[in-house]
Amino acid sequence: MEINYQNIKVIGFDADDTLWVNETYFRDAEKEFAQLLSKYETVNKIDQELFRMEIDNLPLYGYGVKAFTLSMVESALEISNYNVSTKTIEAILNIGKDMLNKPVELLDGVEEVLKTLSKKYRLILATKGDLLDQERKLEKSGLTDYFHHIEVLSDKKEANYSNLLNHLDINPSEFLMIGNSLKSDVLPLINIKSHAIHVPFHTTWAHEEVTDAEKNGKAYKTLSSIDKVLNILK
Amino acid sequence: MEINYQNIKVIGFDADDTLWVNETYFRDAEKEFAQLLSKYETVNKIDQELFRMEIDNLPLYGYGVKAFTLSMVESALEISNYNVSTKTIEAILNIGKDMLNKPVELLDGVEEVLKTLSKKYRLILATKGDLLDQERKLEKSGLTDYFHHIEVLSDKKEANYSNLLNHLDINPSEFLMIGNSLKSDVLPLINIKSHAIHVPFHTTWAHEEVTDAEKNGKAYKTLSSIDKVLNILK
Repeated sequence: MEINYQNIKVIGFDADDTLWVNETYFRDAEKEFAQLLSKYETVNKIDQELFRMEIDNLPLYGYGVKAFTLSMVESALEISNYNVSTKTIEAILNIGKDMLNKPVELLDGVEEVLKTLSKKYRLILATKGDLLDQERKLEKSGLTDYFHHIEVLSDKKEANYSNLLNHLDINPSEFLMIGNSLKSDVLPLINIKSHAIHVPFHTTWAHEEVTDAEKNGKAYKTLSSIDKVLNILK
Repeated sequence: MEINYQNIKVIGFDADDTLWVNETYFRDAEKEFAQLLSKYETVNKIDQELFRMEIDNLPLYGYGVKAFTLSMVESALEISNYNVSTKTIEAILNIGKDMLNKPVELLDGVEEVLKTLSKKYRLILATKGDLLDQERKLEKSGLTDYFHHIEVLSDKKEANYSNLLNHLDINPSEFLMIGNSLKSDVLPLINIKSHAIHVPFHTTWAHEEVTDAEKNGKAYKTLSSIDKVLNILK
């Protein structure tokens, strides 16, 4: 499918797993969590229970490390049938704190892409999660100056993007979003008649996965790494 | 001190304890928390320990109910010397969930003030805390339509306000902030040469308190209730 990017004036970038490593830290945290509770259940069952708890709590807690930590504590009570030790609860809180203190590791090519594109386009950062945590990561990344606007969204659905474009006075046809999540960074944009490029990360949270039917007939490109964006947009 | 409000074009409102009840729910939660741990310490000592924990965690967790809940769990471990029961940990998680599920109770006169001022001024909401929680409260409040822009800030210091005004293309001299916190809603604005009106709530979190020296010589008005704003700005 040929896609015309000539009208694009503003490019939005997702942050976690698009500009820097994130999901890897969650996968590592889940492993540590399963290890802490290994005397009560199998790893597989622990993973399942934690995931179910996160999804159950999503409407109330939203995304991000604090929400994840609270769900780990609650899961530990359930999985252990209230037998988990207080030292283990403390270890779980420390998993969360360690995640918030992680350094920011940029993905290959990110800085070059932002540097090149910022000369021709207005770049914005559109991410979801904890407000403070995202601001801190952006600051640690050293990428702040490439962005004209930073928006931390409580969710990334069509309405969130429409509000954002409306607020920034951007026509949907002039906007291109680049990100690793089909569900959050690509499909909602296509549905509001904007553009999107999918740059998958090697691991995706189960909640972000989409079915073939949802992808069917949607006009977006998938690239194997972010530097390939420069072959399309110059 | 005579203050001239004739140049004001945009009015910012704080949300928690300015438009609706919030701090009361934290005070109630602290009481419940102290009750749960009453066999380990005095109420006064428990309050102190929890406050210290919140302040220690503030750089990492930021503001809001999720941060508060995580600090309650961590405090419970310390206060009980790791003897707290897992049922009590569960009860603490439920204090946090109940707070997130609380109805929004508007303060007297708020709707009338917004309705009147929105005819003459651009109104914006500038609040800090959990992004999702603040969006949910605004939606429950029914006040969304009065606001031209909603901004959830990770903190309310001078730089946060300068960025906001800059981003919205508002001259500091044309901006007036109205809120219950001297530290967050009033003094930073005076320091960046904007205007502010202080409308105290009957209870203030210790972290938001300021000294007389900080207030000294700052040009702001204090009103006993928000409806009095209409006597100044018409």
